[in-house]
Amino acid sequence: MSNERVIYLPLGGAGEIGMNAYVYGYGKPGKEKLILVDLGVTFPDMDGSPGVDLILPDISWLEKRKGDLEAIFVTHAHEDHVGAVAHHYDRLGAPVYARAFTANIARRKMAEHGHPEKAVRTVSPWPETVTAGPFTVGFAPISHSIPESSGLVIDTPKGRLVHTGDFKIDTAPGVGEPFDHAMWEEIAKDGVLALMCDSTNVFSRHEGRSESTVGPEIEKLVASAKGMVAATTFASNVARVKTLAEAGVRAGRSVCLMGRAMRRMVDAAEETGVLKGFPQTVSPEDAKNVPRENLMLIVTGSQGERRAASAQLANGKYQGITLKEGDTFLFSSKTIPGNERGVIRIINQFSEMGVDVVDDDSGLYHVSGHANRPDLEAMHEIIRPQIVVPMHGEHRHLREHVKICKPKPMKAVLAVNGTMIDLSANTPTVLEYVETGRTYLDGSVQVGAMDGIVRDRIRMALNGHVSVNVILDEDDEPLGEPWCEVKGLAEIGISNAPLVDVLEEDLSQYLGRAGNKVRANDDKLEEELRRVTRQSANAEIGKKPEVTVIISRMS
Amino acid sequence: MSNERVIYLPLGGAGEIGMNAYVYGYGKPGKEKLILVDLGVTFPDMDGSPGVDLILPDISWLEKRKGDLEAIFVTHAHEDHVGAVAHHYDRLGAPVYARAFTANIARRKMAEHGHPEKAVRTVSPWPETVTAGPFTVGFAPISHSIPESSGLVIDTPKGRLVHTGDFKIDTAPGVGEPFDHAMWEEIAKDGVLALMCDSTNVFSRHEGRSESTVGPEIEKLVASAKGMVAATTFASNVARVKTLAEAGVRAGRSVCLMGRAMRRMVDAAEETGVLKGFPQTVSPEDAKNVPRENLMLIVTGSQGERRAASAQLANGKYQGITLKEGDTFLFSSKTIPGNERGVIRIINQFSEMGVDVVDDDSGLYHVSGHANRPDLEAMHEIIRPQIVVPMHGEHRHLREHVKICKPKPMKAVLAVNGTMIDLSANTPTVLEYVETGRTYLDGSVQVGAMDGIVRDRIRMALNGHVSVNVILDEDDEPLGEPWCEVKGLAEIGISNAPLVDVLEEDLSQYLGRAGNKVRANDDKLEEELRRVTRQSANAEIGKKPEVTVIISRMS
Repeated sequence: MSNERVIYLPLGGAGEIGMNAYVYGYGKPGKEKLILVDLGVTFPDMDGSPGVDLILPDISWLEKRKGDLEAIFVTHAHEDHVGAVAHHYDRLGAPVYARAFTANIARRKMAEHGHPEKAVRTVSPWPETVTAGPFTVGFAPISHSIPESSGLVIDTPKGRLVHTGDFKIDTAPGVGEPFDHAMWEEIAKDGVLALMCDSTNVFSRHEGRSESTVGPEIEKLVASAKGMVAATTFASNVARVKTLAEAGVRAGRSVCLMGRAMRRMVDAAEETGVLKGFPQTVSPEDAKNVPRENLMLIVTGSQGERRAASAQLANGKYQGITLKEGDTFLFSSKTIPGNERGVIRIINQFSEMGVDVVDDDSGLYHVSGHANRPDLEAMHEIIRPQIVVPMHGEHRHLREHVKICKPKPMKAVLAVNGTMIDLSANTPTVLEYVETGRTYLDGSVQVGAMDGIVRDRIRMALNGHVSVNVILDEDDEPLGEPWCEVKGLAEIGISNAPLVDVLEEDLSQYLGRAGNKVRANDDKLEEELRRVTRQSANAEIGKKPEVTVIISRMS
Repeated sequence: MSNERVIYLPLGGAGEIGMNAYVYGYGKPGKEKLILVDLGVTFPDMDGSPGVDLILPDISWLEKRKGDLEAIFVTHAHEDHVGAVAHHYDRLGAPVYARAFTANIARRKMAEHGHPEKAVRTVSPWPETVTAGPFTVGFAPISHSIPESSGLVIDTPKGRLVHTGDFKIDTAPGVGEPFDHAMWEEIAKDGVLALMCDSTNVFSRHEGRSESTVGPEIEKLVASAKGMVAATTFASNVARVKTLAEAGVRAGRSVCLMGRAMRRMVDAAEETGVLKGFPQTVSPEDAKNVPRENLMLIVTGSQGERRAASAQLANGKYQGITLKEGDTFLFSSKTIPGNERGVIRIINQFSEMGVDVVDDDSGLYHVSGHANRPDLEAMHEIIRPQIVVPMHGEHRHLREHVKICKPKPMKAVLAVNGTMIDLSANTPTVLEYVETGRTYLDGSVQVGAMDGIVRDRIRMALNGHVSVNVILDEDDEPLGEPWCEVKGLAEIGISNAPLVDVLEEDLSQYLGRAGNKVRANDDKLEEELRRVTRQSANAEIGKKPEVTVIISRMS
C-alpha cells in the first residue's frame, strides 16, 4: 500500500496558454489508474503552423495507457479545454464528464464527428461526485468568463487535490454562479494535498474586476450612440452577450445575433437553463428592415478572425447588413497576443467606412475572466494546500506563479508539459519526463508537429519552389532539355532574362558535363540538380528555392 | 501665375505606420517641380509577405516624373524614413539632403549598394535652408527618439508648409536638441499654409513623457540587480543607449554593446558629434572575462527579431556569453503590434533559463518618441496653420487626427497614400488619386506586391504542393504512369495508403479515360490533371494543394 502514489502529468497547457490536458494518476508505479482533466486545442498561425486547421495535444503517452484511463473531466466549455474531446475520442475511448452547459457543447462536437453523444455524461455540481477508479471527482462551481465553469475536487486515497481550471474571483458574474468563498473554505478545511492553479494573469498586479462592472459602461455607450451599434465579444462569454443585448434593448434597439458561434452559445445556454431572460432577438433577415439607429448587432470575430462576422462587416457586408458613417463598432473584448494584426486590419477598414470603433483601450468595456495576482494569492489562502502546482500559462507565467508562493508555507512546483510529478512524496518529486508535443489537424488528417510537413510549407513560403523535370534514355543521356516550373519566385532576375530560361540553361549545361556515374544514379543526380537549381536561382534572384526534382528514365 | 499650385501627395506612410514617402510639388498643373520628403521602408511578415526581405514604397508615379524631382529630404534616420533611399536611388537619381547624423546613416546605405556617397548632402539646421527649384527647405530641430530629427520648413511661392516628421515635445531628450517652442513660434509667426503632422500616437490621451524620466528608473533597476544585466532598446535611440550605459557604469559595471546595429549607431552618433561622453565599452571578447555581476550588455533585438542579439542570447549563447539564473534582461522598449509572438518567445526562453525579464508593462523603462494627443494639439496651437494634414498613421490614426481638429479654426484633410491634394486652393481639394502600393525587395530583386509571387507562396504555405509529371508519346498515349512528388502534405490519408500512390492511381485512371482531344491539348490536359490532383487530395487528406503539372511529349 505504501507503494502507491499520486501523479500529475500535464500533456498540454503547462508552458503555453491553450491546449489544456492534465493527467492525474493513482496506484503503484507504472500501473496507476488515470483520469484526464480537460482536452483542449490551440490555434495555428502563419508564423509557425500555416495551413493547419487546429492544434491538438499529442496524447501518445496516454493512448498507450488507455487501458488505465478511467474518465475525462472537462472543467468548462472553452475551446482550449474541450476542443479536442471529439478529435481524440477514438484514441482514448473514455467517458467524458462535464456539467450540463459544457456537456451540451461537448455533445455537439461529438455529433459533428459521428461519435456517440452518450459518451458525454452530465454531472451535477459539488457536493455531488463521480467515482472513477480510485478517484472521486466533484465539480465545484467557480467564476470564469463562460457559464458553469468548475474547479475540480479530486479525492485520492492519499489526499485531496484541487484543480481550479480557469477561474476568477467574481461575486457578481452576471450569468452563472458567483464565486463562493464559503464553499471553497469548506472544501479545503480538512486539508488539501495539492492545488493545481490557473496562472494566465499572474502578471496583472491589480485586483480583478467583476463582470458586473462593464454593464453600466456598455449601457452608457449604446445609449449615446447615434447610428447602428455592432458589438463583438467571445460568443462563449454568455454573460457579456446578455449584457450587450440588454444594453441594446434598454436603448430601444432591436438586437440581432450574427455569426454561427453566437447563436450556438446562446442556444446551448438556454437549452441547459443557465441563461434565462435573454432579450428577444431579430433575425438578420428582419434586421435589414430595422432603422439603423434602432438596431444593435452582437457579432462573432473579436479576435479579427477572417471569416467571422466582424471581418465580413468590415469587408463591406454581412447577411445583407452594411455599416456606414456614424455607426459604432465596439470591441467588448481584449486582443489575444498574436491577433493584433487581424484586429487592427478590421479597425482600419471600419475607419475607412467612417464607423467609430471603440476598443478596450479605456478598460471600460471588458474585464478578464482570469484571476489576477491578488486573486491567485487569495485562492492560495482559501485552499492552503501543501503543494501549489501552477498550470495554464507560458513558462514565464508558471515561473512567476512559483515565485509568489516562495514566502508562503506551501511548496510550489514548476512542471511544464511532460513533467510527471509525484504529489504524494514528502517533497513533490519529478518522476520522469514524458515526450509531449502537438498534433496538427490538417485538412481531414492528424499529423505530427515534428513530421516536417509544416516545415516544408514554411520553407516554400519563404523560398519559393521550383519543379525540375529531366528525362533520360536507356544510356542515361538526356532526352531533350531539362524543364523547370517555378512558383512564388520573381519571373525575371538580374540578367534580365526569364528565371526559368536561366535555370534550364544552367541545368542543361550541368547535365552536359555531368559524368555517366552521376547520371546513372538517381539519388546523386537529384541532389546535384537540386544544388545547381538553388545556386543558379541564388545568382539570378538572390533566393535559394525549395526544389522538387523528377527524373524519368525511358527504357 | 495664378495657375500655379502647391500639391501634396503621400506615396507611403499615410494609411500605415512605416514606409514614409511624401511628395510636394509647385508649379502649373502636371508640370509641378517636385521634392520628396523621406523614403522609408516597412517590414515583411509571415502573414502577408513571407520570404520578402524588405517592403519599399512603389515610386512608379515619381519615377515617371523624375525629371521634375529636385531633391529628396530625409527628416531623420529611422528605417521607415531613410531605409529605401539606397534601394530606389537608381530610379530617382535626385540628391538626398539630411542633417549630419542622418546623412551619415544614409551614406552607409549608399555605400553598401555601391552608390556614390556624395549623392547625400549634409545640411545645417534651421535657419539655414536649401533651395530646390521653387522650394526653400529648412531642417528645424525637433525632438524624437533618434538624434537630429527635424521638422521641415518648406517655403513655396504660395506660402509656408511645415512637415513635422516624427516628433514629440520633449524639452529634456537626453541626447540632441530639446523641443524649442520659441523657434517653432518664430517659424509660424507670419502664417503657415499647411501643417503635415505625425499621427501615430493620436490615441494616447495622456501627455507625453520626457526621455529624461526613464534614466532614474533604469539606474535603480540596474543598481539593484544581482547577476548580469542585459538590456535591449532600438539601437537608433542613442539617448536611451547612453542612459543604459551610464546606468551600468554607475552601478560599477563594464558595458558591452552587442549586435551590429548597436555599434553602428553609436559610431555614427560619435562620428557626427551628436553623442559625447559615451562611457567606455568593452568588447564581447573581453566581456567574457568580466564577472557577471560587473557586466552590463546593451543588445539589439527589442522586437524579438530572430537573428538579433537578444534572440541569440535567449537561444543560449551570443559571442561567447550566456545568461543564466539570477541574471536580468530588460526590455527598455515597447513591442510594436505584430511583433508580440517573437518577443514573448524570447521572454519564455529566458524564463526557462531562470533569467528575470523586466518589460515595459510598468511603464517605467520606456517612453514613446511620438507626440501624444495633447502634444499634437499643442503643436497645432504653436503652428496655427490654415490646413492640417495628418500623416504617418494608419487610417484610424489619420481619421482621429482629423476629428480632433474639428473644433479648431483650421481645416483638416484626410489624405491617404495616393491622394493628391491641392494645398493652395481656397479649400484643400483632392486633385486626383494616384496609383500607389508596395514594392518587395525579394532576395536581390524588386517585385510588385500584386505580381502574384507572394500570393503563390502563401498558397503553398496554406495548401502544400504537388508536382505532377506525365509523359506522352507521339500518339498522345501515356508513356508509363503519372509521377507525383508532394511537399508540405500529409504522407498518409484516410485510405491508409501513401498519398502519392493514391494521387498517381487517380491520375492514371483519369488518363486512361481522358479522350484523345484532351490528351492532345497541353492547356486542357494540364487543367484537368490539376483538377484531378486537387480532388483526389481533398478526398484523401481534406486539402486542395497547389499543383505544378509538367507534361513531356516524346516525338
